[in-house]
Parts: sequence; C-alpha cells; structure tokens
Amino acid sequence: MTDIDIIPESEEMQAYSDQLRADGKTIAFVPTMGYLHEGHLSLLREGRKRADSLVLSIFVNPTQFGPNEDLDAYPQDMDRDLELARKEGVDTVFTPIKESLYGREYQTYVSLEKLPMHLCGKSRPEHFRGVATIVTKLFNIVKPHIAIFGEKDFQQLAVIRQMTKDLNFDINIVGWPTIREPDGLAMSSRNTYLTPEQRPSALSLYKALQNAEKLVKTGEKNAEKIITITKESILSNPGTNIDYVEINDPETLDTVTSIKGPVLMALAVKVGKTRLIDNMVLKP
Amino acid sequence: MTDIDIIPESEEMQAYSDQLRADGKTIAFVPTMGYLHEGHLSLLREGRKRADSLVLSIFVNPTQFGPNEDLDAYPQDMDRDLELARKEGVDTVFTPIKESLYGREYQTYVSLEKLPMHLCGKSRPEHFRGVATIVTKLFNIVKPHIAIFGEKDFQQLAVIRQMTKDLNFDINIVGWPTIREPDGLAMSSRNTYLTPEQRPSALSLYKALQNAEKLVKTGEKNAEKIITITKESILSNPGTNIDYVEINDPETLDTVTSIKGPVLMALAVKVGKTRLIDNMVLKP
Repeated sequence: MTDIDIIPESEEMQAYSDQLRADGKTIAFVPTMGYLHEGHLSLLREGRKRADSLVLSIFVNPTQFGPNEDLDAYPQDMDRDLELARKEGVDTVFTPIKESLYGREYQTYVSLEKLPMHLCGKSRPEHFRGVATIVTKLFNIVKPHIAIFGEKDFQQLAVIRQMTKDLNFDINIVGWPTIREPDGLAMSSRNTYLTPEQRPSALSLYKALQNAEKLVKTGEKNAEKIITITKESILSNPGTNIDYVEINDPETLDTVTSIKGPVLMALAVKVGKTRLIDNMVLKP
Repeated sequence: MTDIDIIPESEEMQAYSDQLRADGKTIAFVPTMGYLHEGHLSLLREGRKRADSLVLSIFVNPTQFGPNEDLDAYPQDMDRDLELARKEGVDTVFTPIKESLYGREYQTYVSLEKLPMHLCGKSRPEHFRGVATIVTKLFNIVKPHIAIFGEKDFQQLAVIRQMTKDLNFDINIVGWPTIREPDGLAMSSRNTYLTPEQRPSALSLYKALQNAEKLVKTGEKNAEKIITITKESILSNPGTNIDYVEINDPETLDTVTSIKGPVLMALAVKVGKTRLIDNMVLKP
C-alpha cells in the first residue's frame, strides 16, 4: 500500500496530470461527492485496472443541489474516504474547496436541451446543469483518459455521455453496474438517512424492478400497465411517496409506450424524507 | 515555406495535438471563421512567436448566428485563406464540416449569465452562447497551450476569458490589438459588404472613438455627455443607424456613469445593411 497524494488546488492537479501525460501514463478518473460506499469502490477497482494512474475527486458540488435539497446535510467523512481510497490503490485524491471552483464572478454553465427534460430533471430542474458544469470543470482539471460513472445514476450517465460527445472531450466514458446491499437495496450515500423501520419500504424499489423484469420477459408489452402495477406494489409499503415511475428509451430517455426492445425502467421514490432512485434495463 | 497540414476530422486533430504534447511541444491556436484579413494575420504572427506549433481553425459557426443574420452570406475563400496561412507559417489548419461538429442529437451549450447581458448580447441574445460553445469544442479538439483572440471583438474576448477561468481550461488567453486599414477602419471580414460610397460613414466609428478619447484625456468625466456627442457625430453621416454606444467597465462590462479610471467605449452601428463594431479603452 503506497501513500496517496492529496491535492486541493486545481493548478497543482493540472500540473500533476500534465506530468503523467508527458511521461506517457494514462489516467482513470472517478468523480464523487465522497462518503464512499461499495458502489464507489467498484468504480475505483475498475479504474485501477484500466489505467496507469487512478484519480478520485471528492467534492460536494453545490450547483447540482436545488434550494430545498440536502446540500448542507449531505453526509461527509473525509478521513474514512481517504482510508478506503488508499486500500483501493488510488494514486491521487483531488479535494477542492467550494470557493476555489466557484469564485465571486462565477457565471458559466453547461446545459443540455433534451436529456434533462426527463426523469429526475423534471423535479430537479437545475440538477443536470450543475452536474454537466462540474464534470466539465473536473475533466479540465484532472485531464483523464477514462472516467467511470455508476449506472445507478442512469440519467446522469446519459447526460455525461452526451455532453462528452457534444463538447468533443477526448475522454472514454465508462458506465459501471449498480452495486446492491445483500438485501438488494441499491448502494447510495443517502441510504444512511434511512431508519431500520424504513428499510422494507426502501427495498420495494428493487422488488418492483425485479417484478417488472419478469413481466417484460414473459411477454408484457404495455408500458402503462407495467407502470401501474409497479406503482401499486411500491405504494403498498408504508411511508412511500412516488416521484416518478417511467419506462423510457435507454439512450434518448424518451417515453416508450409499447415495449419492442430493451427499455429503461427508472424509479424515484421518497421513503419518509429520503429520496431514493433505482433503475434497470428490461429486455423482452 | 514548409507544407501545411489540413485536418478536417476532430479525432485526427486530437491525435495530432496529443502527439505534439507527448513530444514536449507547445501549441498556439487562432480560431477564425475564415476570410482572413490583416487582423487575423496579426494573431497568427503572435501565435507563431509564442509556441512551437501554430494551429489555425476555419469554421463558420452556425450557433453564433441569429435567425435573421448573415450566416448564409458570410464570405468564404478557403484557397486564399490556406495561401495566407502558409505564408504566416501556420503548421496545421483545422477545417471541420458543420455536420461533424453539430450532429443529429446535438444538445449541449455553454452559456454565461452576466457578460452577455451587455453590448452586442442585447441585440444578439444567442450569439455568445454560440461563441462559448464552439470555443469550448475547439479547445477540446485542438488542446492548445495558448489561444489568441482580437480585441476588436472585445466582448467576445471578455466572454472567452471568463469562460476559460470558470470552466478551468488550462489555456492562456491572449488578447491582441485591433488592426486598422490605413484610413482607420477596423479590419473585419464584413467590411467586404461596404460600397465605396458607404466608406466615409463606416469611418465615422473610429473618428468618434478618437474624439471621445480626446474628451476623456482633457478631463470630461460625464459618460452620458460623451455618448450623446458620439451618437450625434456618427448620425451626421448618411446611412448610419446606431445599435448602441456605451461606456462600460472593461472587465465586467457594467455601465459606467462617471469616468474615474480606464473605461471601454464600444459601438455597434449599421451602415446600410452592414453591422460594424469598434471599441477603444479610454484612459483619463
């Protein structure tokens, strides 16, 4: 276990990446908001395999939170994160402070016109603008060859793929499967908000996805029917409040009514005060 | 005079720049819409001095033109441009086609919240979004160390400086002074639209700026008064139609009422159907 470089300054990170590139090394990058869990670690392990140098960033990005969201309450534990990063063989951790990335005259944003109109973008109108902007900034600071994102945030991954293509970033975007708890709950830093009593309700998302998968596999083509069954099964659990249940095209995220090929089923459900998301690609 | 590389494909340009960087070479970049004049050539000469490799791009960017502007009529002469580029020692000319930079599902834009609210942005609301977007794309394709822009498009330069800082592009932005015809008319590809009869009216912009400079030098502090004198002197010429005459802070472009330090005086005037811009930093 070698030691890890912790770099808080953008200019130092850029100089470091320039040096790696000048030495002919490849760079894999995993951007996170910290409070690492098995999902993040699986991204780090994949990055470790795919490049000479592995960079992790930890930054709770304010521009992707709405005014009434959990920015101030977002869980943090830098010491634990660094310990986990060391164990996974991370070479460098980029840990900027808010003021260095968003200064006083800050005014530039990257936004997409279509993909954010679906799913989470409907109830979080500025969220994907914040995501596209911070990822653009981090790409310019870390200068990676490869960047790895979880499929759990499926819409985020779609936005980043499209943005990378549209803005001609010379970076290979890798999507990585969702990691689940033994009981099936998708790993998320926000799971820490759940009480033990809320756990069975939180599990209803994955169970509903598995049921929808079965329905599609056995020939059900009517998306509306599957959505209704899914909503009913989730709402039969106490304290659940559905934000959306949708069946969409996995690339454009446009609504699908009749299932002819692989479709994305995506859910956002509040369990108590905690908003959970999950998704699955269903194949007939 | 060595031969010149003409590269139409983004991926090839990126690979070329990667190779230069791997070889420890620096890259200077001059992005243009072609139809090169002495103003562009002065940028190329500066770029030639400042880096090992000099890249020129020629692309008439559709996203920076409004629906009723001169996109289709914009003057082009690729053969002449390449000949001039060769003479100035350009190493590489990047000449993408529209379809390769803006594909079918294209949907990502870079926009600024404050700087475009002034000057040309008022009458060309989408213009600077188009500029910031294409410059982001070109920076990611050409991967330069230095990029050089003319001060003639002062607001464009301010937008690009701010965007470069905000999005953490590791690129040195150089502004270069306006080049003028012997009679004082600021060089512009659009000057080709002017008839000989319109020339004296076109010259009224520079004359008005020189007069304002004298007023400020001799102690006039009242911006409104200088603006009124400037407008009157321009409108005394036939066929002139003022879009704006403003005195602003050179960095934020906010309106200045009382002149205490250097200010930007910026003009946009239609002479017949041709929209001309010019500017000068006035120092008390």
